[in-house]
Amino acid sequence: MGGDHGPAVIVPAVFDFLRRDAACSAILVGRAEALQPHLAAGAALAARWSVQHASEVVDMHDPVATALRVKKDSSLRVMANLVKEGRADGAVSAGNTGALMAVSRFVLKTLPGIDRPAIATALPTLRGHSYVLDLGANVDCEPEHLLQFGIMGAMLAAALDHEARPSVGLLNIGEEDIKGNEVVKRAGELLNGSGLNFVGNVEGDGIYKGAADVVVCDGFVGNVALKTSEGLAQMIRAFLREEFSRSLFTKLAGLVAMPVLNAFKARVDHRRYNGASLLGLKGVVVKSHGSADAFAFRHALESAAVAARERLPEKIAAHMAAMENLGPAPTLCD
Amino acid sequence: MGGDHGPAVIVPAVFDFLRRDAACSAILVGRAEALQPHLAAGAALAARWSVQHASEVVDMHDPVATALRVKKDSSLRVMANLVKEGRADGAVSAGNTGALMAVSRFVLKTLPGIDRPAIATALPTLRGHSYVLDLGANVDCEPEHLLQFGIMGAMLAAALDHEARPSVGLLNIGEEDIKGNEVVKRAGELLNGSGLNFVGNVEGDGIYKGAADVVVCDGFVGNVALKTSEGLAQMIRAFLREEFSRSLFTKLAGLVAMPVLNAFKARVDHRRYNGASLLGLKGVVVKSHGSADAFAFRHALESAAVAARERLPEKIAAHMAAMENLGPAPTLCD
Repeated sequence: MGGDHGPAVIVPAVFDFLRRDAACSAILVGRAEALQPHLAAGAALAARWSVQHASEVVDMHDPVATALRVKKDSSLRVMANLVKEGRADGAVSAGNTGALMAVSRFVLKTLPGIDRPAIATALPTLRGHSYVLDLGANVDCEPEHLLQFGIMGAMLAAALDHEARPSVGLLNIGEEDIKGNEVVKRAGELLNGSGLNFVGNVEGDGIYKGAADVVVCDGFVGNVALKTSEGLAQMIRAFLREEFSRSLFTKLAGLVAMPVLNAFKARVDHRRYNGASLLGLKGVVVKSHGSADAFAFRHALESAAVAARERLPEKIAAHMAAMENLGPAPTLCD
Repeated sequence: MGGDHGPAVIVPAVFDFLRRDAACSAILVGRAEALQPHLAAGAALAARWSVQHASEVVDMHDPVATALRVKKDSSLRVMANLVKEGRADGAVSAGNTGALMAVSRFVLKTLPGIDRPAIATALPTLRGHSYVLDLGANVDCEPEHLLQFGIMGAMLAAALDHEARPSVGLLNIGEEDIKGNEVVKRAGELLNGSGLNFVGNVEGDGIYKGAADVVVCDGFVGNVALKTSEGLAQMIRAFLREEFSRSLFTKLAGLVAMPVLNAFKARVDHRRYNGASLLGLKGVVVKSHGSADAFAFRHALESAAVAARERLPEKIAAHMAAMENLGPAPTLCD
């Protein structure tokens, strides 16, 4: 059980999640001695959770190779095995992203028709929210990968938001078809012929305008867009805080404006968007931000629960099979 | 004379600029009949400006080929010729970016040692401001291009901010050397051996943290980072406005907080950062945002004036010559 805060935050988040969703149960995976001090608060729910001991810890600085080949009893590995064995319908971790992706991919494998799993998250927009992928799993992409991201993103939006035909846009540096590098131009052609509700190119500002329900890009570009946004939001927060603490007058103004500023903050609260989906695997895996608090972690658990209920991996596999005329969608247990 | 507002905004901006900088003079390039109605306000400064008629207009939708081969008496073309002939020390335009770059490159040519010109702009950061390049002129880059962007960006920061050894960072998806795609990894090695004050990889959020004075990336990534930032800033502005206009109470809170919100707005005012430098050309060319008002356009004029005074193109050429052991820096008039 990882992340910046470990069980102290995650265990209460799980109990809170169980209280709100009576149909779910949870397996807490981690070092039993680290989990123990936090379990008493869940006594009333004891029939709906259990502890699965994992003796090793993959930390944020462990190379992927260590997570894969050395620490075979890490919570990441044990958790992935639970999903593979069908004992869990989905997995959520706040640990090392690279290790989570590598271990999940190694244990669960990718779905038929998917070359590379991708990471997707929701971002707030002027019109609600949109999903962006890939956010860093794939730094060099071929057009076919971007097409697969489009399909997986559309299935994600359909599952989480019950959208019948989510719109899909391609992140580019201009709205015209002729813009962009060769990979993106070809990806645009593939998406255009994919049967998805493809709306064409979306520029960076289009993400926050809500130009499409799903915005597709390679992992390098997506990671830069996401981190740049985080940096800008932090700077704006810091500047607002500084301006409101300059003098007695500005502090009083801040007090008066507090309810409005809080309403604003709630609206762009990144904790409500916590929970990035690892798509393209034979199983539901969600990555929580390492710094997530219990409120944020619960949101990641809720995403995983919806994706599992909606059988998201099966739906992605079925769509890939239909597209590639491979016959009926393969099951997840091949 | 282009941009969304044309001479009605640009001519007053030029006069304001001339009033503040007694050492400068200006040549207004455009259709004389369009400029005429706006000239009276500059009567007192008449010795320091003149009009250069250009009969054609490159509009925002003209393909680059039209700007280059058909409209040979456009204000863009005439302006570039003035710089080439040494009649102007720099040029500023609010017109079509692609056409401005293509015409400038065709007329002025690139500096020796520079394969491709790049577009750089300043962005506000927690620590002041930083320059980011390329912002869209080059969608597919080799490592050598990113090295050249680093050199040009460092020279720009040195010229505009009088920094002796500006720090240069490479935009990447992790801070470790092993991160990123192949082009970025190799660019990191080149920058490391370049003699620049290279501080290594900078993630997206590092831009706004002020992790480096100059942040280097390819034009696709830079354009996405810039536009994504614009979109997020617009969304935050819209949400703040909405929250402060919800009810009588929130409107009153907005009135009380107004001076603070205005101070905040001034701090992140993108107009103060207006003026993107086209670097790597044998001459100073600055692109103003098309929607710039007179205040913003004046900032672009000021950037161009400083770059010209600091002989930025000559300094870039000298640095390239020193690096490549080509002997003494070539002049701009070869």
